[in-house]
Amino acid sequence: MKKHNFSAGPCILPQSVLKQASNAVLNFNDLNLSLLEISHRSKDFVEVMETARSLALEHLGLQNKGYHALFLQGGASMQFLMTAYNLLENKAAYLNTGTWSDKAIKEAKMLGEVVEVASSKSDGFNFIPKNYTIPKDIDYFHCTSNNTIYGTQMDGFPTTDVPLICDMSSDIFSRQLDFSKFSLIYAGAQKNMGPAGATLVVVKEDVLGKVTRNIPSMLNYRVMINKDSMFNTPPVFAVYVSMLTLKWLKELGGISEIEKVNKQKAALLYTEIDRNPLFKGYVAYKEDRSIMNATFNIVNEQLKETFDSQVKAAGISGINGHRSVGGYRASMYNALTLESVQVLVDVMQEVERIG
Amino acid sequence: MKKHNFSAGPCILPQSVLKQASNAVLNFNDLNLSLLEISHRSKDFVEVMETARSLALEHLGLQNKGYHALFLQGGASMQFLMTAYNLLENKAAYLNTGTWSDKAIKEAKMLGEVVEVASSKSDGFNFIPKNYTIPKDIDYFHCTSNNTIYGTQMDGFPTTDVPLICDMSSDIFSRQLDFSKFSLIYAGAQKNMGPAGATLVVVKEDVLGKVTRNIPSMLNYRVMINKDSMFNTPPVFAVYVSMLTLKWLKELGGISEIEKVNKQKAALLYTEIDRNPLFKGYVAYKEDRSIMNATFNIVNEQLKETFDSQVKAAGISGINGHRSVGGYRASMYNALTLESVQVLVDVMQEVERIG
Repeated sequence: MKKHNFSAGPCILPQSVLKQASNAVLNFNDLNLSLLEISHRSKDFVEVMETARSLALEHLGLQNKGYHALFLQGGASMQFLMTAYNLLENKAAYLNTGTWSDKAIKEAKMLGEVVEVASSKSDGFNFIPKNYTIPKDIDYFHCTSNNTIYGTQMDGFPTTDVPLICDMSSDIFSRQLDFSKFSLIYAGAQKNMGPAGATLVVVKEDVLGKVTRNIPSMLNYRVMINKDSMFNTPPVFAVYVSMLTLKWLKELGGISEIEKVNKQKAALLYTEIDRNPLFKGYVAYKEDRSIMNATFNIVNEQLKETFDSQVKAAGISGINGHRSVGGYRASMYNALTLESVQVLVDVMQEVERIG
Repeated sequence: MKKHNFSAGPCILPQSVLKQASNAVLNFNDLNLSLLEISHRSKDFVEVMETARSLALEHLGLQNKGYHALFLQGGASMQFLMTAYNLLENKAAYLNTGTWSDKAIKEAKMLGEVVEVASSKSDGFNFIPKNYTIPKDIDYFHCTSNNTIYGTQMDGFPTTDVPLICDMSSDIFSRQLDFSKFSLIYAGAQKNMGPAGATLVVVKEDVLGKVTRNIPSMLNYRVMINKDSMFNTPPVFAVYVSMLTLKWLKELGGISEIEKVNKQKAALLYTEIDRNPLFKGYVAYKEDRSIMNATFNIVNEQLKETFDSQVKAAGISGINGHRSVGGYRASMYNALTLESVQVLVDVMQEVERIG
């Protein structure tokens, strides 16, 4: 039975990418060797890494603009630390929009002063704070573009003279933005880019080299840049699958094309959440709703069992809400089709009918 | 044509493991979902992680002895930093046997005083130093059990009252040792355990909690232990393939059985290196030779082209020496068969005959 995979991450990837990845595990590039058993310094893998780095910049419109793309290990959580290690000399400002921002703040506090410009923590992070002031005497401003757990997403980004850093783990490559506004963007691969185990970092040259502390090699962006993301053995398979996914996106027409589909999917689901009296969205304001992760509750708890069994019968997987929020969360990453969202909406309507 | 893969790492993995891994990328555990697109918190993946951690301890004979097994990211290079971050309060001692020891020393120096008890650096690391003294007033002693680049391997390990830390990246699970002598063992997966992208850390409980510095979450063994190696999204695929490889090893009879084969392979190749006048081993003393990586040169450079073309014609891959040493390096990790070594030896004899 066909599955409709709404998992929040690791999440759905394009079927064509999975097929190529599966083949490469047995025989990569017709070498009669597995991708997993060749040297990362081999011509064949170096080409994979270079293509992945170059496609990432191309999709973001950042080629030849002083940016470096790196594929590192450790996930966004390691970037909470690395950003501060490399850029925080005295003071930085953070916008707190969820668990991940909160963790980023915690790590940065070990290395300098952190100003929390605004937070929606006391409201269960169910909205994106606005109208905050970014101090001028800071090393950078850090924000999280999409909050997977709560289903909120930043619509606009502040205009500021300080370097702008953004954790885009859960919405990178899903919508068009002026990415050149950012000095540093990072994203764990396991949403729109690939499997768990690789992390994309896009960093602008001019923001580096301004802190006085010694930076350990493995935490040092400069070391990684100088070694073309191969200071040590990279996560070969995760980089390869990321490259395949970035190629798939390019063949589709890039971010501007996938954004249209993503908006259609989100409109379809949110329209149903608003229309159907059985369901209620979690996010306080419509303008803060994420087009990647739609969070909602069932109003009549007595129908929960019916809904859950219908969801299962339809082949829908991965829509349980995060344990800290409960309810449901339908994640609609790039590889999820409009058809899958329609299947979910059909189930919501069916439960309304029989309820 | 069948390949004989002598790559130094990432390196050969068992064919049965590669087949299962390839299938799991399409359909994992008959879920009709790829291993790459399910939640790492799902029952199916949690079981993978727990099995991998448990098998690692079982193979090393360290169950119920106060050890924790972790699968982390960043490779051994990240462990150069993490070991020091978690254990180095004042002073530590290191044995310098190669590039990787050298890098470990460099990272540790950022966090405390480092005593280099001995080094073979000035001799191109072509032997393992002996008869050194380990100070008593140190936090730990660090060594590298096998030096991939030079083809040297520690035969015995010093007896000392201080915690013993060992980088076993390139020979873990290849030979029986009293692993309970070590307080901390780490190993990048990409030799005898799995693909690049995961790192095994086996750490004894009683060695932790003794430094006063604040440790960032992603560098903190205690944080990783408390979260069962799932503080953040783990490198799912690399952990899964590691688990498969550890299962494969168990089915073979474990370390004691594979050690017999490894010794046969090494004996076959080293006997030929010593016998054949065309070749000369790189390592100064026979007792320091690695059973994992045999390094050698061709004496008559005029025959290099002939040898290289015969090697290629036989389907042998990955035997070029590391760029810093040159010559040849035949890596004979667990998954390489005796038959492959025989093919290499046959080529060496053939070139001697025609030369």
